[in-house]
Amino acid sequence: MTWMRIATAAVLIPAVVAAVWWGSTGLVTALAGLVTLLALLEFFAIGERVGLHGYRLWTSVCALAVLFQQWAATAAQSWTLERNLRLTRSSAASELQLELVLFVFVLGVAAIVFLSRRPLTDALGDIAISSAGLLFLVLPFSALVRLDGVSVIGPRLVLFTLTLVWVGDTLAYFIGRWFGRSRMAPQLSPKKTWEGATANVLGSALVGVSFARWLHFDAWHMVVMAGLASIAGQAGDLIESAYKRSAGVKDSGELLPGHGGMLDRIDALILVAPVVWYYFELVLASRG
Amino acid sequence: MTWMRIATAAVLIPAVVAAVWWGSTGLVTALAGLVTLLALLEFFAIGERVGLHGYRLWTSVCALAVLFQQWAATAAQSWTLERNLRLTRSSAASELQLELVLFVFVLGVAAIVFLSRRPLTDALGDIAISSAGLLFLVLPFSALVRLDGVSVIGPRLVLFTLTLVWVGDTLAYFIGRWFGRSRMAPQLSPKKTWEGATANVLGSALVGVSFARWLHFDAWHMVVMAGLASIAGQAGDLIESAYKRSAGVKDSGELLPGHGGMLDRIDALILVAPVVWYYFELVLASRG
Repeated sequence: MTWMRIATAAVLIPAVVAAVWWGSTGLVTALAGLVTLLALLEFFAIGERVGLHGYRLWTSVCALAVLFQQWAATAAQSWTLERNLRLTRSSAASELQLELVLFVFVLGVAAIVFLSRRPLTDALGDIAISSAGLLFLVLPFSALVRLDGVSVIGPRLVLFTLTLVWVGDTLAYFIGRWFGRSRMAPQLSPKKTWEGATANVLGSALVGVSFARWLHFDAWHMVVMAGLASIAGQAGDLIESAYKRSAGVKDSGELLPGHGGMLDRIDALILVAPVVWYYFELVLASRG
Repeated sequence: MTWMRIATAAVLIPAVVAAVWWGSTGLVTALAGLVTLLALLEFFAIGERVGLHGYRLWTSVCALAVLFQQWAATAAQSWTLERNLRLTRSSAASELQLELVLFVFVLGVAAIVFLSRRPLTDALGDIAISSAGLLFLVLPFSALVRLDGVSVIGPRLVLFTLTLVWVGDTLAYFIGRWFGRSRMAPQLSPKKTWEGATANVLGSALVGVSFARWLHFDAWHMVVMAGLASIAGQAGDLIESAYKRSAGVKDSGELLPGHGGMLDRIDALILVAPVVWYYFELVLASRG
């Protein structure tokens, strides 16, 4: 199983790295859209097992709209003239607000509830799981698109984010396996240990330091950003375990040999991407 | 029952109108926060009946954060210099993004799932209903704060929005009762008729025309805005009926004599407010 895991990674990692490095933000958005839809459908399949039937088609359409909105937002140019005074050049598309996309989602769900023949007794649960798909998967994951759209260093930021997750996950996996003693959340995920979690944070911090030069950021900031991202990533991993425990399944799917489903593969990335994005946007970018 | 309904309205309507007319946007935000929390707790109580246990405290905190963010956003000043070129003066608080609030909500839920002793088998449903509370109640309703914060005409826009809902609801109620023949959604809400719904749209359009002068907007735009808002409001009413049908309850609560609960009272307003806000922001305000 470990070998299959490595073989799958050996095929996918170069492909993803190449797409991020040579591809435009449009291509990265399209790939992120594909990954999001696969993960979302797996999430809804988990929901089905506890009687929550997501509005698959409409939520998928809105998920793509969220990614489009995030992509369009990267096209807006912004200059800070002085403290709190900003000049923004935007296109018509980049004016599209996330709030509006979310509101259209709500209106569409209302129309579906009114028009569909689904049993009404399920409506509340169906609405709920569809909302969770957007808030817990699509929205945080879409931060990757924002990162890729940062001028000049965008692709580097994305590669940094991916490396962070890959190194952190791998270290946690092997260190946990070899030295893991104290179990972290036996109820949620029996194999997770504090030793593995610590290795994840330390490994991520090392990745942070290694990328500092390439990204032209202060090494200490990189360590803090990577450490926070690692903690968020492990939270993403644990919350996905909670979804699966709720439904009594082991993997979210069987798409990626040795890794389980798409959701299993990106669970950490979903929460890592927004941490890197907000740390960059609110802390690093605002310092010029 | 009708008299109790009228008596409650006779007390509440003047109080709300006075608060909007004489109160600051801060006061309106605080009142909206109170109303949101009451409605959210009723929503979670409905969820409890189908085994979905919302994270009441954390979702309430995040609901208030959403309202604060919307209030802070009203403090940002923005000038359009030329097509797509905009100058914005913001405070530190008005830089707070809704996306960030939603992401913090997700992180907090992950922490709660990890730390709490709730049964994990419920986690997915609990996450789902909490998400729905934010997306289907808090976010759309918070548009009222944005409306109130519009410079000069903000309170008028809010009073217009409230009048729209009150007149539409009342007309639909009485016309539906007296002339209602064709039932609209017998499965969802047995008393709703197409006659009532039509009266709601026409009454709202009339309210639109009557407010045109006071708001200095084109009467035709007001009719379109009011018509769309009325349809959205009725969708809000129906989707709340769907929540209640799911749980097998008649009213969301007993807070307001003759009206049921807070959620029953604001169900239409929840979807009307964002329609008025977006129509104002995207259509009317951009024309100068």
